[in-house]
Amino acid sequence: MEKMLKDILDKNSDLTKSGNLPTYIPELAKANKTALGICVAELSGKQYCAGDYQYSFTIQSISKVVTLILALQDNGITEVFSRVGMEPTGDAFNSMMKLEIVRPSKPFNPMINAGAIAVTSMINGEGEKRFNRILDFFKKITGNPNININEAVYMSEKRTGDRNRAMAYFMRDVGVITGDVEASLDVYFKQCSLEVTCQDVAQIGLFLANDGIVPATGERLADSEFTKLAKTFMVTCGMYNASGEFAINVGIPSKSGVGGGILSVVPGKMGIGVVGPALDEKGNSIAGIKVLEDLSKMLKLSIF
Amino acid sequence: MEKMLKDILDKNSDLTKSGNLPTYIPELAKANKTALGICVAELSGKQYCAGDYQYSFTIQSISKVVTLILALQDNGITEVFSRVGMEPTGDAFNSMMKLEIVRPSKPFNPMINAGAIAVTSMINGEGEKRFNRILDFFKKITGNPNININEAVYMSEKRTGDRNRAMAYFMRDVGVITGDVEASLDVYFKQCSLEVTCQDVAQIGLFLANDGIVPATGERLADSEFTKLAKTFMVTCGMYNASGEFAINVGIPSKSGVGGGILSVVPGKMGIGVVGPALDEKGNSIAGIKVLEDLSKMLKLSIF
Amino acid sequence: MEKMLKDILDKNSDLTKSGNLPTYIPELAKANKTALGICVAELSGKQYCAGDYQYSFTIQSISKVVTLILALQDNGITEVFSRVGMEPTGDAFNSMMKLEIVRPSKPFNPMINAGAIAVTSMINGEGEKRFNRILDFFKKITGNPNININEAVYMSEKRTGDRNRAMAYFMRDVGVITGDVEASLDVYFKQCSLEVTCQDVAQIGLFLANDGIVPATGERLADSEFTKLAKTFMVTCGMYNASGEFAINVGIPSKSGVGGGILSVVPGKMGIGVVGPALDEKGNSIAGIKVLEDLSKMLKLSIF
Amino acid sequence: MEKMLKDILDKNSDLTKSGNLPTYIPELAKANKTALGICVAELSGKQYCAGDYQYSFTIQSISKVVTLILALQDNGITEVFSRVGMEPTGDAFNSMMKLEIVRPSKPFNPMINAGAIAVTSMINGEGEKRFNRILDFFKKITGNPNININEAVYMSEKRTGDRNRAMAYFMRDVGVITGDVEASLDVYFKQCSLEVTCQDVAQIGLFLANDGIVPATGERLADSEFTKLAKTFMVTCGMYNASGEFAINVGIPSKSGVGGGILSVVPGKMGIGVVGPALDEKGNSIAGIKVLEDLSKMLKLSIF
Repeated sequence: MEKMLKDILDKNSDLTKSGNLPTYIPELAKANKTALGICVAELSGKQYCAGDYQYSFTIQSISKVVTLILALQDNGITEVFSRVGMEPTGDAFNSMMKLEIVRPSKPFNPMINAGAIAVTSMINGEGEKRFNRILDFFKKITGNPNININEAVYMSEKRTGDRNRAMAYFMRDVGVITGDVEASLDVYFKQCSLEVTCQDVAQIGLFLANDGIVPATGERLADSEFTKLAKTFMVTCGMYNASGEFAINVGIPSKSGVGGGILSVVPGKMGIGVVGPALDEKGNSIAGIKVLEDLSKMLKLSIF
Repeated sequence: MEKMLKDILDKNSDLTKSGNLPTYIPELAKANKTALGICVAELSGKQYCAGDYQYSFTIQSISKVVTLILALQDNGITEVFSRVGMEPTGDAFNSMMKLEIVRPSKPFNPMINAGAIAVTSMINGEGEKRFNRILDFFKKITGNPNININEAVYMSEKRTGDRNRAMAYFMRDVGVITGDVEASLDVYFKQCSLEVTCQDVAQIGLFLANDGIVPATGERLADSEFTKLAKTFMVTCGMYNASGEFAINVGIPSKSGVGGGILSVVPGKMGIGVVGPALDEKGNSIAGIKVLEDLSKMLKLSIF
Repeated sequence: MEKMLKDILDKNSDLTKSGNLPTYIPELAKANKTALGICVAELSGKQYCAGDYQYSFTIQSISKVVTLILALQDNGITEVFSRVGMEPTGDAFNSMMKLEIVRPSKPFNPMINAGAIAVTSMINGEGEKRFNRILDFFKKITGNPNININEAVYMSEKRTGDRNRAMAYFMRDVGVITGDVEASLDVYFKQCSLEVTCQDVAQIGLFLANDGIVPATGERLADSEFTKLAKTFMVTCGMYNASGEFAINVGIPSKSGVGGGILSVVPGKMGIGVVGPALDEKGNSIAGIKVLEDLSKMLKLSIF
Repeated sequence: MEKMLKDILDKNSDLTKSGNLPTYIPELAKANKTALGICVAELSGKQYCAGDYQYSFTIQSISKVVTLILALQDNGITEVFSRVGMEPTGDAFNSMMKLEIVRPSKPFNPMINAGAIAVTSMINGEGEKRFNRILDFFKKITGNPNININEAVYMSEKRTGDRNRAMAYFMRDVGVITGDVEASLDVYFKQCSLEVTCQDVAQIGLFLANDGIVPATGERLADSEFTKLAKTFMVTCGMYNASGEFAINVGIPSKSGVGGGILSVVPGKMGIGVVGPALDEKGNSIAGIKVLEDLSKMLKLSIF
């Protein structure tokens, strides 16, 4: 297995030279563009890693999957989906257009930025507690007590997060968000700035593959129904507005982040973490997608 | 099994009173609004039916799955997807907006009307031959030599199909469609007007569940890759702009039509045909969706 | 005056080298890109011309002003504006987006293509008569009995007019247009293909400047109210989605066409015809606009 | 004249019963819905008033005309229009859609909210000074040293101004606005909250009618070119997305505000202030428009 992973990385390593690092969050533009790593964690407890699997990167949009589950635990399905929709959009992750032209006005799904900000605003906890609950949730899921935010990235996101700010105020205007917008944005910027490795991401995948129970501890952290729901969103909306193509070519429920990471779940079998900071124009890891495509084909992992 | 199907229909029969018959194709408004039927065909060869499973209805958008496969057989993946995208849209099935604002201009996927018309325009065959090839393909897949178009519905579609006409001419303007627009529309209106029962639809599902081989005859009619691709589209875009919610609540690759039918596929296991002509505001059978949701939960059919 | 006109043309003649001839109507791409001419007709009966004022070009969108007036004569204000709006759009002349997202669905104004097609569809006359009435109206307004269509351009428009076709069918779908779409389009393509010179266009301007009475004959061809209305549209929507900037920089009610012509009206004083086939990216004569700007400043012709 | 004004008000007073007070700024919903007043100030120095001409209301969007002129004085035409466009939009005053879909991203004109906020952000002055300069400008133009903000409305705007906040952050994201967004919004909310009467508004109109010189003092407060530019925007974009219809029916350069006021200018002749707080669905005074239409027809004031 590790040999195969290494071969796949080698085959795709040239792709890291194409694509670009995101510049709208200046701190992210400092990433190592040619890093490429993977970690596969099986329910059996075995773990296989290759390449730059110890490379640290910020989790970015991958965090949306985890906060969605926490918001569902806190509020239940009915409440969460009264404020956020369930449909893919076909628009860019930072698009606001449908908020204006579709009635009633609510973000189309929890995987685009607007939806994820709305979800984060629903997580329980006053002041510091809200983010601390999210951080604890991540620590328990990954079994990594050292996960924390990358302060430089967090400050960079906060300073340059005007598009997200625009969405958040728009959503408060139409009643999707209530309460302190800047406080919710601050939590959102923090959750996006969590620093992880492929191993951490693979553990999140394993937790989802195991329907909400952390295999190592046997602790149930989320209802099976909520993890199933999260995996479904990963298929229909997980790769921004390239989700449809990814479903066809790879077929594994996945969520990407502009930090270059991809979280993938093979239900009942394995969690996968991939990193490759060079992005395509839609915001997905350009080499990461191809690595997963090769892995999916070799191991026949597509759910379709 | 038949008892269970009957119970599910009974439980949901009241739903047929809500919803509406489509009025934009006048002939469809004459359907029996309270009809409700289901047919489940297993790979084993067994078939279970209940309710109005012999009720005849026009296949409408369900045909898009079949013509996509035929166009792929004729042209290959590269050519087909040079003209049609792979992404869900979040817009209504008859929306043209993204054709105008997204560059390059091409329909987002083969399951919305614009995409399906483009796909049909790519199917080989001069004059009458093009539709005849489609009709033969349907006959072979369903094993029903008597399938044919409902003339009244066909004429009604042709007469009132101005929105589809608008899309087709727009697409020729931007180069997605070449050749005679009215000829392609005529084939499209015909394929939508094919009259079927739940049994026919279940056989289409079985053919997809069996990766392109008709179980009864053992004949391979389509590449496995193309049927897999079709099933993926059924998940991401099969239920119009309610596909995301359907994936979460039901989780079975499906395609609906405004004739009230739904085609569902449980990969490797079964094909399902459901009919219930009363539609919700997005164009899906209001009772049909709930019937599939109940069936999915009872038999644990969700792929997620 | 003629000296001044000549000087203005000389000053701006270099601009004809920038810009482009339209390629979407192949026949228009054959125009003489460096032609530049102007004709100013005063109510006093005097006429001043300079440059390529005898250069023939097709009238294109300038015709929309004339057909609007004829449709108002035929149907009255209430009927015409039940089908077409009065607002500038900010969108390109061939945009369809607002037809889809604004309710009720009707073209925003009679100066964009969709609105002009709807207007033409309302002009009285069976079969050939409809266009013949338009042609007669043009002949009387201009006093030029030889005006006729350029057959090559007409055929080119008809062959490549798929975007207009798309709009027209969309409008029939939503009830803005009734009757035979291709027949209305045919009249529209013909009216756009009328071949004129700057002198003809200046005469149209003079007719508008004189509130609907042809100065030479004293014949009232249109209600004063309708010509006033037409001049107002020329200010708010006459230069496509550059109308606002033109109002500020020039301030003369004007209507441009992709044949390179511009019709301008100084109310109560003069009609102006300008031609310069090289267009900017919004479809307006690149040199023509500057010629009018200079003339407006020299003679203080702005209405603002 | 006063008799005529009174008759016009009487004729249209019933219209104040239809329409609605704006509810999105709660404090505005407390206005006197049936108030109706007018003031006409002539360049000769004469002033004619009728009805509730002493009724106080907040100036709201009418202020956009004045701040545009001040921003032009501060920055010049090139700089201002590098950040704001010159085109009418056809969209609602609080629409953000074109910011997202049109490139380069900048507000279409200075009369919609986004454009006006961008304009205000360009006015010189650190801290308190910026708004104080605006206030002084208003005092000099109107000759009313007592003009000031309505604190309750200002606080209400600030508290509920999330849509404006969304626009402002979006614009900073795309580089249209630089610097402290909340500070610019605060100035914008204050300028909208200035309390005026019809007499004040008529004086603003007079200043514009007189090309930038206050008739009473002879003081030139603005370049003639900038006031001409402002009047042009009042024609093409002054009445929100009803500007086209208003140009046709009334034909006087005007700017409305959701406080129920309308500023009108008859170039070279008079300034007019009208108030009637009940609004139509586009945000214009429902009775005010009709009062101006009657006045325009009686005195032949249309510029077209």
